Amino acid sequence: MFNFDIKKKLQDKNGKQFLGRAAVYETPHGHIKTPAFVTVGTKAAVKGVTVEMMKDMNAQVFLANTYHLHIAPGEEVVKAAGGLHAFANWQGPMMTDSGGFQAFSLGAAFGTNVSKIATNDSGYVQEKKNQVSNSMAKVTEDGVEFRSYKDGSKIFFTPEKSMQIQQDLGADMYFAFDECTSPQATAEYQREAMERTHRWAKRSLDEHKRLEKKKTGIINTLTKKVKPPQALFGVVQGGQHLDLRRESAKTLGAMDFDGYGIGGSFTKEDMQRAVGTACAELPEDKPRHMLGIGEPIDFFLGIENGMDLFDCVAPTRMARHGSVHTKLGKVNIKNARFKTDFTPIEESCECYACQNYTKAYICHLLREKEMLGATLASVHNLHFVTKLVDDIRQAILDEEFFDFKKEFVKNYYGDK
Amino acid sequence: MFNFDIKKKLQDKNGKQFLGRAAVYETPHGHIKTPAFVTVGTKAAVKGVTVEMMKDMNAQVFLANTYHLHIAPGEEVVKAAGGLHAFANWQGPMMTDSGGFQAFSLGAAFGTNVSKIATNDSGYVQEKKNQVSNSMAKVTEDGVEFRSYKDGSKIFFTPEKSMQIQQDLGADMYFAFDECTSPQATAEYQREAMERTHRWAKRSLDEHKRLEKKKTGIINTLTKKVKPPQALFGVVQGGQHLDLRRESAKTLGAMDFDGYGIGGSFTKEDMQRAVGTACAELPEDKPRHMLGIGEPIDFFLGIENGMDLFDCVAPTRMARHGSVHTKLGKVNIKNARFKTDFTPIEESCECYACQNYTKAYICHLLREKEMLGATLASVHNLHFVTKLVDDIRQAILDEEFFDFKKEFVKNYYGDK
Repeated sequence: MFNFDIKKKLQDKNGKQFLGRAAVYETPHGHIKTPAFVTVGTKAAVKGVTVEMMKDMNAQVFLANTYHLHIAPGEEVVKAAGGLHAFANWQGPMMTDSGGFQAFSLGAAFGTNVSKIATNDSGYVQEKKNQVSNSMAKVTEDGVEFRSYKDGSKIFFTPEKSMQIQQDLGADMYFAFDECTSPQATAEYQREAMERTHRWAKRSLDEHKRLEKKKTGIINTLTKKVKPPQALFGVVQGGQHLDLRRESAKTLGAMDFDGYGIGGSFTKEDMQRAVGTACAELPEDKPRHMLGIGEPIDFFLGIENGMDLFDCVAPTRMARHGSVHTKLGKVNIKNARFKTDFTPIEESCECYACQNYTKAYICHLLREKEMLGATLASVHNLHFVTKLVDDIRQAILDEEFFDFKKEFVKNYYGDK
Repeated sequence: MFNFDIKKKLQDKNGKQFLGRAAVYETPHGHIKTPAFVTVGTKAAVKGVTVEMMKDMNAQVFLANTYHLHIAPGEEVVKAAGGLHAFANWQGPMMTDSGGFQAFSLGAAFGTNVSKIATNDSGYVQEKKNQVSNSMAKVTEDGVEFRSYKDGSKIFFTPEKSMQIQQDLGADMYFAFDECTSPQATAEYQREAMERTHRWAKRSLDEHKRLEKKKTGIINTLTKKVKPPQALFGVVQGGQHLDLRRESAKTLGAMDFDGYGIGGSFTKEDMQRAVGTACAELPEDKPRHMLGIGEPIDFFLGIENGMDLFDCVAPTRMARHGSVHTKLGKVNIKNARFKTDFTPIEESCECYACQNYTKAYICHLLREKEMLGATLASVHNLHFVTKLVDDIRQAILDEEFFDFKKEFVKNYYGDK
């Protein structure tokens, strides 16, 4: 179980080797052809999208969020339901994150416009205001104290607690507890946080092994099946600092995790180097997951530099605001010029929305805040990114990655 | 076209004849087996429900609202799209209402708790406050001046205008422009409104005939098809007054409408008599549609008294608030006791939600305001009412209507 079988390594026309690869990853709920996009259903449901729609778009993996599910309905409910697969009716591979990202999103980044990928003209260089009063997360050596998004009540996550919750949730792959830092943090803080993340990684792995051993042979009372093994991924941190990224990857790479996540936030410019530096140090025979990344260009840069999996809420979040992917870039379908455009979002797209509906209809629905508008736009965007990553995989197999990348980037981003 | 073929008339075990019947209604987009529930998609989309989900629940007919579609996206957009069928991707029979209901909902009933079906302990006997300032609709002999729900701008509907809009929307069946009165209106006002509705019915029918004649042979530029004929239904009014209902049905029954709607609001007690009185006067060979009614008991009472079609937003609206139909009555699935209930809403239900999801999951989604929760609950409720009306039809064919009614009412309403 959890074999990562590399089918082809990325190389250019001159035979130069890159870190990227096309592989097949074995999980208790089926094989994942990587690189693959992982669909996010934060609260055990993809916003506005059914699992049938996911299957229809060839979605392979479903990722839910531990912090949110701990608050509601609670891991004890999901466990009693027979685990996340049974609860959410998704029979394919599933993942959960560790809650560590919320140390960032509810902590340093809370109430600011700092996002996971900062650009130089956004939050990256901006002074943060009201850091203390706004913060909803507090980091100590033992763990992170969060505030609940529901009622503000205190929640304390330790590495052990995160593992216990994620074992109860029952996803196939889950993550070690880490601290995702802000790109605004000082180099000193980045090191301090990274070293703590490494100590937490060890504690996560120890707890994981204890729990895996303990459950051997246990029968799930609802599904009547033996609980399948779960895989634990360590999370490489280090922010935009290449030396820290290298150190983090080396340290975690030496520990026997089943796979690795690359976490943290960086600028677009830093990302490629940070990822490449980390992947060069990680064991080749284990999958690497890029946490919370979903921009088209990032798939190319991530894959080129050794990444296998990507998850992101962007495709559905953008969709709810009317922003849809096309081969020629993003367009906002709520724009008045689409009111009488009776063609699909993309003529050549095979998604349910494009096969059955016009821009005019989706424009109408989104402007009128009809739920079906968000559903159709989400289906299109998820199909777009899922297929894009699948196409990149095929391009690696066909030894056409760089041509494909060049063509895609030219069309999508133009002269930018 | 538009033949209404009665297959069986309702009678009890002693052979006593009732006004109810099981029939087949022929439309340009397929046959409707009546009695039938008509699914409402106000703005050309059923809230949270795809057309595939509708097909899956054996929905036969789709009704959209003229007032809403006139405001957005505008009938010219729907017409340019090739009509409502093409716009909303529903290939089965469609209906539109006339906008006349908004003379009530935005006029007399606006800002009050008076609803279409009043009960004696609700708005029926309650004093209405701020009638003038709250009103968003003003009735004159020529037509109704509405305020737009979007921006408050003035919209003037005449019978002729309503027909023109509905012809552009292109549904198979549409309604004459009428004035739906409040149950709080005086008998004098009810008569005045009814007589005006009759004059409007004549104007609607004249305009309908002119438009039908005009379009003969016209090819739809988008669908490349000859525009199919459309049927016009007159709307019987008269409120809770049986003499007015009788007069209205007689007057309209003598005009050559293709079918009839029963409009207006009444108390539960009045409804049965008002409907029976009207249906007794209406031509037997034309379908009768009960506007805006969707309570289980009302299907039985309506059908027993001669109704063939029912539309209502209640199944989806209730669903969004967590209220779901079961054979034993309504329950609110958001209730804490369902948090760990890992059984479907109804074990025997064949809807998509019950076949694939537990109460615990739907409870979680609705409490967390996840769109999928509203979708699953809506699918269940629409399936429930659609199947209930289908089952009533079968009971008429099997001569078991009264047994079926007794059993259903006992289970659903208990001793009430």
